[in-house]
Amino acid sequence: MTIERASEARYDFGARRLEEVTTPTPSDIEIASAAKALPIREIAEKMCGLTEDDYEMYGRYKAKLSEKLSSTLGGREGEGDGPTCDATAGHGYYVVTAGITPTPLGEGKSTTTIGLVQAMQAHTNARAVACIRQPSMGPTFGIKGGAAGGGYSQVIPMEEMNLHLTGDIHAIGVANNLLAAAVDARVFHESTQSDEALWKRLMPQAKDGSRKFSAIMFKRLKKLGIDKTNPDDLTEEERNKFVRLDIDPERITWRRVVDMNDRFLREITVGESPTEKGKTRKTGFDITVASEIMAVLAMTTSLADMENRLGNMVVGPARDGTPVTCDDLGVTGALMALMRDAIKPTLMQTLEATPVLVHAGPFANIASGNSSIIADQIGLSMVGKGGFVVTEAGFGADIGLEKFVNLKCRKSGLKPNCAVIVATVRALKCHGGGPPVTAGKPLDHSYTTENVDMVREGMCNLVRHIENTKSFGIPVVVAINAFPTDTEAEHAVIREISLAAGAEDAVLCTHHAHGGKGAVALANAVKAACEANEDCKDFKFGYESSLDIKSKIETVAKNIYKADGVEFSERAEEKIKLFTEQGFGDLPICMAKTQYSFSHDQSLKGAPSGFTLPIGDVRLSAGAGFLVPLVGAFPTIPGLPTRPAYYEISVDTENDQILGLS
Amino acid sequence: MTIERASEARYDFGARRLEEVTTPTPSDIEIASAAKALPIREIAEKMCGLTEDDYEMYGRYKAKLSEKLSSTLGGREGEGDGPTCDATAGHGYYVVTAGITPTPLGEGKSTTTIGLVQAMQAHTNARAVACIRQPSMGPTFGIKGGAAGGGYSQVIPMEEMNLHLTGDIHAIGVANNLLAAAVDARVFHESTQSDEALWKRLMPQAKDGSRKFSAIMFKRLKKLGIDKTNPDDLTEEERNKFVRLDIDPERITWRRVVDMNDRFLREITVGESPTEKGKTRKTGFDITVASEIMAVLAMTTSLADMENRLGNMVVGPARDGTPVTCDDLGVTGALMALMRDAIKPTLMQTLEATPVLVHAGPFANIASGNSSIIADQIGLSMVGKGGFVVTEAGFGADIGLEKFVNLKCRKSGLKPNCAVIVATVRALKCHGGGPPVTAGKPLDHSYTTENVDMVREGMCNLVRHIENTKSFGIPVVVAINAFPTDTEAEHAVIREISLAAGAEDAVLCTHHAHGGKGAVALANAVKAACEANEDCKDFKFGYESSLDIKSKIETVAKNIYKADGVEFSERAEEKIKLFTEQGFGDLPICMAKTQYSFSHDQSLKGAPSGFTLPIGDVRLSAGAGFLVPLVGAFPTIPGLPTRPAYYEISVDTENDQILGLS
Repeated sequence: MTIERASEARYDFGARRLEEVTTPTPSDIEIASAAKALPIREIAEKMCGLTEDDYEMYGRYKAKLSEKLSSTLGGREGEGDGPTCDATAGHGYYVVTAGITPTPLGEGKSTTTIGLVQAMQAHTNARAVACIRQPSMGPTFGIKGGAAGGGYSQVIPMEEMNLHLTGDIHAIGVANNLLAAAVDARVFHESTQSDEALWKRLMPQAKDGSRKFSAIMFKRLKKLGIDKTNPDDLTEEERNKFVRLDIDPERITWRRVVDMNDRFLREITVGESPTEKGKTRKTGFDITVASEIMAVLAMTTSLADMENRLGNMVVGPARDGTPVTCDDLGVTGALMALMRDAIKPTLMQTLEATPVLVHAGPFANIASGNSSIIADQIGLSMVGKGGFVVTEAGFGADIGLEKFVNLKCRKSGLKPNCAVIVATVRALKCHGGGPPVTAGKPLDHSYTTENVDMVREGMCNLVRHIENTKSFGIPVVVAINAFPTDTEAEHAVIREISLAAGAEDAVLCTHHAHGGKGAVALANAVKAACEANEDCKDFKFGYESSLDIKSKIETVAKNIYKADGVEFSERAEEKIKLFTEQGFGDLPICMAKTQYSFSHDQSLKGAPSGFTLPIGDVRLSAGAGFLVPLVGAFPTIPGLPTRPAYYEISVDTENDQILGLS
Repeated sequence: MTIERASEARYDFGARRLEEVTTPTPSDIEIASAAKALPIREIAEKMCGLTEDDYEMYGRYKAKLSEKLSSTLGGREGEGDGPTCDATAGHGYYVVTAGITPTPLGEGKSTTTIGLVQAMQAHTNARAVACIRQPSMGPTFGIKGGAAGGGYSQVIPMEEMNLHLTGDIHAIGVANNLLAAAVDARVFHESTQSDEALWKRLMPQAKDGSRKFSAIMFKRLKKLGIDKTNPDDLTEEERNKFVRLDIDPERITWRRVVDMNDRFLREITVGESPTEKGKTRKTGFDITVASEIMAVLAMTTSLADMENRLGNMVVGPARDGTPVTCDDLGVTGALMALMRDAIKPTLMQTLEATPVLVHAGPFANIASGNSSIIADQIGLSMVGKGGFVVTEAGFGADIGLEKFVNLKCRKSGLKPNCAVIVATVRALKCHGGGPPVTAGKPLDHSYTTENVDMVREGMCNLVRHIENTKSFGIPVVVAINAFPTDTEAEHAVIREISLAAGAEDAVLCTHHAHGGKGAVALANAVKAACEANEDCKDFKFGYESSLDIKSKIETVAKNIYKADGVEFSERAEEKIKLFTEQGFGDLPICMAKTQYSFSHDQSLKGAPSGFTLPIGDVRLSAGAGFLVPLVGAFPTIPGLPTRPAYYEISVDTENDQILGLS
């Protein structure tokens, strides 16, 4: 790709600026349906400077990009004059979008991410790529709408974004369920066969009578300390250790998944057919995005790295406590075959025809809550020096941004030049003493009329997020995501206190109502912050992963949540001891905490302190590469309400349009 | 598309003839991996004469075709001189591939289908499209290999064919499971809420206090005989009838699905989480291809038709016996949104770069076992006058071809010009008294050495299939699928007896070993048979669907299976009475019978007669549009063996290849 080409492309895209918008803002689906998406080929080739070898089309408006693209593109030379963080020489500025502690209605992080790149690329002459998560399909049919942004800052076609996309979640679901089937089938076969019979079946003889290990079996042999390559050389004892995983059926942690809000699958009993000979077992389903494989996809850096991670996933302990892995079951290669295409990020476009990478959508509590490392890396290479990648971190900054730093950046080696923290008058009022905000119920009057004092009172929440983010050495730009009912005085107090708290800038944004044009000031502020922090020299992690498990948890609890201390349940203590003994003590931690408070108690709004954080349990995600301390219980599969969103969804069979998605 | 273009394209493809093959034939994956697939764009545009608007790429080697293509292409004028059957003027010849009663190893119907089109298009100057089913992924990781043909007659890339393809099975899985979640959630909400509360939640008030029916609710209102359009006009009694589906939880027939061999899901108890308040229920999972939605996809003719079929699917009876449908649950539109892309057939290519349409893969016992009507229609339009569509019917001709005629052709209005019946020396010996053939075990000596008498003895099976097929007015060409261990004398007896039984021809084929070149004689025989039966004037169904249910079953049992009579269980009698009362008596029937015998007893090889066919139960597939009489029990989800195929599957992360699929 030449600079001329990129530059020419960028000017082409000036033509796609949304200069005309409708007021009041129509519904998301109305805006999305009225927009004419460009063929993705044009985005890929003219906009991103890719060639046919770099991408594969999936329909007209989606393309998958080679996961190797960041290394094949290398660091590009752009027109901007700034170098950037040192992870890959010559790539673009790296910006993370986080938020204040949200209300259940969400404060517009995705929308701001999209609005910001629209502003940069379509209005301020800067190359910019947004990196966002793939939404789960389940909630699309339940209560919550999609996750493609909103108003005049959206990813289109929104129905493709919110439904199958390019099949990654489906691939994860099948891979997850193949492993689950393998676990139960293995337990069954081991319980009904002698060691000798297992050996004969697992190691069938070829026509000449010989037996051969399949490649993956050498991983198990190595784990058992057996370095023989000829099966016939194994002693009887070695054979028996090899064939018998001896998984404890009572303690299997690997669950099945479905990409649907199916509450009746939360807890189930399986194996009740007579063919399973009474070997029933209690287990359950999670929603697919809660699968560890989704977390693996988000954290992986290459095909080979993914193979290691998938192989390391633990399905539960053997009866002697040894963790049993995907490699032990011999199924890693099949999971890789299933995930071969899912590792490739999906290229889509915004309403202003700027490029968006959609990739991975891990849960933000039990998993990392950030989109993929691979997509960010590709984005940074694509935009080149002086360009921008804007990536979104789920939930509030205490969760999403903390995990962005301590999990994602730790693994990728990338450093952010700047963080955008999205704030709304609504959420600040909620933190300033406003009544509870509930999805589906009308907002209280105090949220829709001016109340400067309430906003001022709630600023403690935003201030702490600013301070926390700065504690990682990341400069902060506050994006005030404007609502029609906000007032100037309310906005002024946000700006004033944000600056006093150390934000580089605090900028009013109207991208929901006006598209990229409404985020031009934000784009300029982000650009200035990035240019002032080209080398990310102050960036630091929240803790060293070599600390012991408890110290890591305490560090996050005290430094980020402002807890006085941490209380570990007996179960958590046991698990910490076990994981330390098993050699997992060096893994970083992925806190599973409510997003509605800095504390574990979602009713504690504002900036609570002086509380003790309770850790009820700790789980292991050995493949994703982290430990998950549980601060409370988290439902891992939602349900359908009495009137689900699907009542409104339909296909216009004459005009071939999907209707009713929101 | 102009004739010049098609013709030019065809000659281009002469260059792709496989003139060089290796002997002995390498493994399927070795052949497939060594083959270089053409970009699917070239197949679509040069070969099929399509334009960019007609198809969408899914990666480099797959494309989805618009389901409207058969009407937009219309009947093309080709170079051939024959008109064809009268369903659509100007389209190609329609050929169905069926088989004799198979052994568990399969007799090569898919391979012959692929070999035949390779022969036609790459070797004999005729336009030809193969239409085949999409295989389920589950068995790929279990025992059975893929379903992309074999040897030098395969669809490539075989790993894409055997894994996700273009996501249709995933879409079916999610759609099926959304309906399942909707059923359980609705039962739960009805059991925990008053009529009034249900009304308020199902019909939420807008800000102005008004309530509105969503479009799909009018279908339920109509079913209840309520023609009011303003919710406020409903009487209390009408409201209560409207909100309460009153599904009987003990008799729900709709099950969940997973595309995996997961035996532990065959029978399960759901709803065991405390959040479900003790409302547990016994149910189970089927493999995804067994979903009625797969059967709907295969039988549908347009988006609007699919909407009707999905809406008509019955999930179980209300407590008063009324069938409760997908429309009653309000979820049809969401299923349509999920299935919007699945209705489009996938274009792939053979090893000789000829076009293949892959679409739908319904079970051949509990469902129709044939690929989609839409793909066949598109294929017939694409090849145009004088060209050929070769479509495959699952299992033996007593099942696949019977359903092709009585279900698929009845719905589509298409008529076949000719049937190919695939026979092997192996299967004929099995019918001639050979010992049982078991997958995974070595073949008995009698199958690998000459035994002309055994073949002659077994010909009774093939003869009956020929006679049955001719009874539908379809001319038969026998394809003798040659194995290296066969002898000339064995082939001679097959040919001699086949011709005596009324086959148009009986031709030796070596397409497994030689690609299309090995099926040139078959191609010529099929062409001659089609030209001699241009108008399909003798074609007739096996029964009138207006016959009562029992008579339809008896007709198939006596005419095709040669049973003396039928015995209906008490349960079957009840169901027949119920379905007749409910107005489903006019549906055609889809027999669920073993494929290993003409009878219900799979040990009865050859051409048994004089038996009584037992019907244990009858099921309703109101969306697919048939009744399913059960002749025995059929597992609807397989299990994994002790050493599953996944031990051999891996991704070569350096060379980016999937290895070990077979």
